[in-house]
Parts: sequence; C-alpha cells; structure tokens
Amino acid sequence: MAKRVTGPEIEKLIQLLAKVPGLGPRSARRAALHLIKKRDQLMGPLSGAMQDAYDKVKICSTCGNVDTADPCTICTDPTRDQSLVIVVEDVGDLWALERAAALNAAYHVLGGTLSPLDGIGPDDLTIAALVDRVKTGEVKELIIAVNATVEGQATAHYITDQLEGMDIKVTRLAHGVPVGGELDYLDEGTLVAALRSRTSL
Amino acid sequence: MAKRVTGPEIEKLIQLLAKVPGLGPRSARRAALHLIKKRDQLMGPLSGAMQDAYDKVKICSTCGNVDTADPCTICTDPTRDQSLVIVVEDVGDLWALERAAALNAAYHVLGGTLSPLDGIGPDDLTIAALVDRVKTGEVKELIIAVNATVEGQATAHYITDQLEGMDIKVTRLAHGVPVGGELDYLDEGTLVAALRSRTSL
Ligand SMILES: [Zn+2]
Ligand SMILES: [Zn+2]
Repeated sequence: MAKRVTGPEIEKLIQLLAKVPGLGPRSARRAALHLIKKRDQLMGPLSGAMQDAYDKVKICSTCGNVDTADPCTICTDPTRDQSLVIVVEDVGDLWALERAAALNAAYHVLGGTLSPLDGIGPDDLTIAALVDRVKTGEVKELIIAVNATVEGQATAHYITDQLEGMDIKVTRLAHGVPVGGELDYLDEGTLVAALRSRTSL
Repeated sequence: MAKRVTGPEIEKLIQLLAKVPGLGPRSARRAALHLIKKRDQLMGPLSGAMQDAYDKVKICSTCGNVDTADPCTICTDPTRDQSLVIVVEDVGDLWALERAAALNAAYHVLGGTLSPLDGIGPDDLTIAALVDRVKTGEVKELIIAVNATVEGQATAHYITDQLEGMDIKVTRLAHGVPVGGELDYLDEGTLVAALRSRTSL
C-alpha cells in the first residue's frame, strides 16, 4: 500500500500469510481481516495450534512421515500391516493415499526423486534407510507409488536395483484410465497402458 | 481421513487452517505441510506474528479501522486531510481504496449495511458515531463509498437523511465503465450511468 494504514503487527501478519501456499497478497489481506473478525473463535486457536505444531513437529525416523511422535502414528499402529510398505515421494502423497483408504499399510517417504539436473542424488533421499528397512526382514512387499514422471520412474528403477537379490516383492501402481476420466483427454501412453492391462467384465 | 496418520497437534492445525478464507480442507493440508517444511523460515515467524496481532489488535474508536493503536494509524496521520472522510462498509473496502491511493483522506467504517431481512438496523452500524463525528465540525466532506448494491444504496440514503440540515458536503462514488472493462459484459444500469456521466475528450 502507498501509505501505512494499520499497525506494523498486522502488516507483518499479512506479509507472512501471503507466503502460505494457496494465499497470495490479496487473499492474505482478506484472511488477516477474517482472523481479526474471528479473533477469539479462530485467530487465537490457530495461533496456539501453530505454535504447538511448531514446538512438537518431528519427522519419523523410520518412515519419514510428519508427526509429533517418533516413531509416528502410522509406524506404531498395531492394526496396520507393517510388512506392506508403500514408497512415496513426499508426505503429501502419503496423506493422499490415506484419504483413498485402499490399503492398511505402512509407508516410506523418499523426500523427493532422483534429479541429476537439480543435483539430487540417492544420498539426498531416504533410499539407504529404505534398503536397511528391507534388510530387517520385516517387510514383505514394497509398493513403489512414485509419480508417473520421468524422475519418478528413474527413482523407482534405482530402488529396484538396490533391492536386487533380496527376498522382497516389489510392485508398482497400475496405469490406466482415471475414474471419471474421459478418453478424449488422456495421453496415448495412458491409453496404451489401459488397453494392455484391460480386465474382463 | 479414515485413520489417524499424524499427531493430533498437526491435525488440529490442518482443521483450523481449513477455516481461513481462501483455504479449503485440501489446501489446508498442503499449507500445513509447507509450514512444516519451512518450520523456521515461515511457521515460527507466522505463529509469532499471529499471536502478536491477536494480543494487540484494536478497532479504532474514531473510524472503525483495524489497527494495533487506537486512534489508528490513519486517524493520527498528520499528512492526511482529516476533514475529508470516506465512508465504507468494512475494513476490506478501506484497504482496497488505500491501494488505489487516489485520495489522502480519513475513513469511517460502517461495519456493514442496513439489512432489515437480516435484522441489521442503524444501531448495528456506526452511523450514530459518524453523525457525532460530523457534529464536531471537523469534517467538511463525506464521500459515501458503499457498495453499489440495494443494501448499500439504502444505507447511503439513510445516512444522508441523518445528516439533513448539517453543514456538510456529501458525495458518492461515480458510476461508470470499469477501467479495462468490456461494454459487452456490463449490465444496462452501468451503461446508462456511464452514458449520462459522459465526459468530453
Ligand atoms: Zn513412521
Ligand atoms: Zn481510525
């Protein structure tokens, strides 16, 4: 703004809110005003929850999940099949798969994908920890659920190579037509995969 | 989510972030993950700024602006023309007008518009305080900058009635074609107003 119109504390709040993904400078102002209007119902609790999460957040040293306990909620859940481990690029993917609630499994978060051009090699990911985890003999199947990108697939191949000779089943997500997807809008690679993996009705 | 995948503190943070305008449940999860990844650069400072704003936020008892000082930054700014007062519905409108930086004026925030159907009458707005402010004799012109809605216009008329007989100039925003607006997409009322208020080239 051209001139100061409010206190520096509120300007600071707006400036930091604008850095939250999903909020730009304009919606940060709208968000700040809403928080101020809902001072006791929202701003106070959110401020407290953020401080609480800030103080307690941990990365699970087993699987890489984000939690306030280490090992995390998933790794210590006795109702999950800890011998089935889904390998994902990051925590957002873990949460997305959990929303699908398809499998009652454990996870391993790689922290990204191999990307030589960006200087990201195997040591920047949790691949060694994954191999160690497999070596304990407690994991029976790894489902490689990386993104279907060039980097994702290269990472999947690298992991498979590292596990060569170990007694472990390694699978990957099926390719195919997204549920609700229109064929017209799909790329040819997806259509080829969907045809090859066709199932009987 | 079907099962708990992270600590209660992080779930609480996601749940509260989802109540911030501009963020829904899915983007709240993305925002929480981003905050956790940027724990020291963003989450800590934002948490502190929110607590700080929570502790210090005040509504200016003169104009209704949101600030950490009362009277506010605008009301105490000696470089502003305090005799020119722009009347707005809420603080978001005040900030929007300040971004335009068209006038170096003071403000009066009504806190909404008259809306009998929603049970909002004159006593729910700061109209009496506005009249008192005019009575001090320090205000020379009021620019009624309420929204061009039925409620906004009714509120403008009500205010004008209250000021009847007082020595004050009351104006309103011009109607017309928005800058960059295409005639094709404008309603007839706007086009009529733009034609009637046409200016010479
Ligand atoms: Zn874990
Ligand atoms: Zn003020």
